[in-house]
Amino acid sequence: MTGEFDFIKRIRKHSAFPLVRTDAFVLGVGDDAAIVRKDSKRDLVITTDLLIEDIDFRREWTNARLLGRKSLAVSLSDVAAMGARPCWAMLSIGVSRDVWQTKFLDEFYKGWFALAKEIDVTLIGGDISRTPDKIVIDSIVAGEAKRGKAVLRSGAEVGDFVFVTGTLGGAAAGLMLLERGERLKMKRGWTNANEAEKLLLRQLRPNAQIEIGIKLGENNLATSMIDLSDGLSSDLAHICCESNVGAIIEASQIPIEPAIVSHFEDKEERLNLALHGGEDFELLFTVAPRNVSKLMKKLEGHQIKHIGVVTDKPTQMFINIKNRKRRLKPEGFIHFS
Amino acid sequence: MTGEFDFIKRIRKHSAFPLVRTDAFVLGVGDDAAIVRKDSKRDLVITTDLLIEDIDFRREWTNARLLGRKSLAVSLSDVAAMGARPCWAMLSIGVSRDVWQTKFLDEFYKGWFALAKEIDVTLIGGDISRTPDKIVIDSIVAGEAKRGKAVLRSGAEVGDFVFVTGTLGGAAAGLMLLERGERLKMKRGWTNANEAEKLLLRQLRPNAQIEIGIKLGENNLATSMIDLSDGLSSDLAHICCESNVGAIIEASQIPIEPAIVSHFEDKEERLNLALHGGEDFELLFTVAPRNVSKLMKKLEGHQIKHIGVVTDKPTQMFINIKNRKRRLKPEGFIHFS
Repeated sequence: MTGEFDFIKRIRKHSAFPLVRTDAFVLGVGDDAAIVRKDSKRDLVITTDLLIEDIDFRREWTNARLLGRKSLAVSLSDVAAMGARPCWAMLSIGVSRDVWQTKFLDEFYKGWFALAKEIDVTLIGGDISRTPDKIVIDSIVAGEAKRGKAVLRSGAEVGDFVFVTGTLGGAAAGLMLLERGERLKMKRGWTNANEAEKLLLRQLRPNAQIEIGIKLGENNLATSMIDLSDGLSSDLAHICCESNVGAIIEASQIPIEPAIVSHFEDKEERLNLALHGGEDFELLFTVAPRNVSKLMKKLEGHQIKHIGVVTDKPTQMFINIKNRKRRLKPEGFIHFS
Repeated sequence: MTGEFDFIKRIRKHSAFPLVRTDAFVLGVGDDAAIVRKDSKRDLVITTDLLIEDIDFRREWTNARLLGRKSLAVSLSDVAAMGARPCWAMLSIGVSRDVWQTKFLDEFYKGWFALAKEIDVTLIGGDISRTPDKIVIDSIVAGEAKRGKAVLRSGAEVGDFVFVTGTLGGAAAGLMLLERGERLKMKRGWTNANEAEKLLLRQLRPNAQIEIGIKLGENNLATSMIDLSDGLSSDLAHICCESNVGAIIEASQIPIEPAIVSHFEDKEERLNLALHGGEDFELLFTVAPRNVSKLMKKLEGHQIKHIGVVTDKPTQMFINIKNRKRRLKPEGFIHFS
């Protein structure tokens, strides 16, 4: 069998994609979320994310409350990447008999509901199942966008500016610290975290960029968008592939997470964490040059950075490092290669 | 921690349930599917079902194609139990590296798409993930019902007649044959199955009663409905609990799957398979006496059976066996007790 993305392409042939914009369906398999017509004014955007113990998380690295929060956050991020406003969610979870006997599920739901309350998302359903061993979570979130205005991966045009929110590489750096044996012992509270804790929190307690996503969607500012779950190089490759364009990125403009500096002395390693590290859950999006000043105005106060430009060489990505142009390959996370 | 259903009740307190029928939400956690307002005329009904290897299925008992088909069928059954018409689906699946290397996923999707095509359901999205070991499936199906007309578990009224579709106990009998070492070797094709194969097929290739579900929903015939996934005694208990009523069932009226007879000689065992055996995916529903003749007309040609009556003793269920009235307890499938 070929790689994961090839398989998804094959599934697409059977699925609703590519679709004419009919009354019922807009877009199926292959974007951050699927789009379904809701009513005459709105589309429903809906995503599902599987999280599997020992693949997507380790119990000894986190706690049930953080895990519940993250399970919701990763799907909120997909909805944000469509420029949509999250509205309801479903949660399916499977645990072993041992885990069932503990406070795990109570704590898990506490973390889930705490974030849901912040975002005003309602739990409408789900499923609870038993597993032989590992914990299994499927997180489903739906959002609403104005009809025909959800932002796809496929809309980038030659000459568009490439933007990214927040800072990059922190979640991957946090993962490396966890692998080295560091653990989160938050006694100071989230707001007083030291550098190492900041990195661990980027991995274990990610924030979805919902507000920015909604602003980009409602103001028609992004021509394409994706959330940074696999890593900048891989997620940019998805946009290039779906939009049939290329891109050049300026290394010096990539907003590397400042907390990385104290733990990773090698500058190339820092850049690689920001380029290929997954799970930052920031937004990567493209904007037409004529809309850049409007973008700056609408997103005033939010951290966004112009890191590159869309080019006309389909799927070819480059990065300028100290005025040397190098080929950029997708080296982010992949389940199956 | 207390039992599975108690836990779901606690989750409800945080969730959208119980809800006033607002513009956005109708009913959350606790029915076969959740209900969300779609537009001024229609509601969206949506369900999610986790299927875990070695808990909900065994690979050596089935094949990938049958498993793909069943994954969709179990969720279609939930939508049918709301009296709704299935329209789109999402599928999340996690497999190990070993399974990824095989034809498993190709065959799985073939089985899934074959049923989806029969029912005219579109795959709009999903997720593919890696697992350390076991196969994990989350099946999500959405359907549409006329606004406010989805059939809940909570609408049964004293004096209503209790009906069931098809025949019962076959899937549980099939499971027992599998546990005894019998396997499905279909050389004759589905239509020429012998008695043992019929039982194995009830377990491995269940049919959702979609057409009956839609007819009951569209004609406002059922006051309450649930699909028989846990078993008649447990699923009737759900209706009784949600509707705050009781029920009496006539043992002689229960449509025991005829193929059981050749493999299970003990009459009490046959009755117990039909009463407590899960996964028949038939529909259990209640009908007001004044609507029974309309029901018979609208469902002409479909196999339905009047098996009992709704009583005024909340959550108390009885069964008449040869004119002896005995207490009926929910003894169907449960993940955690």
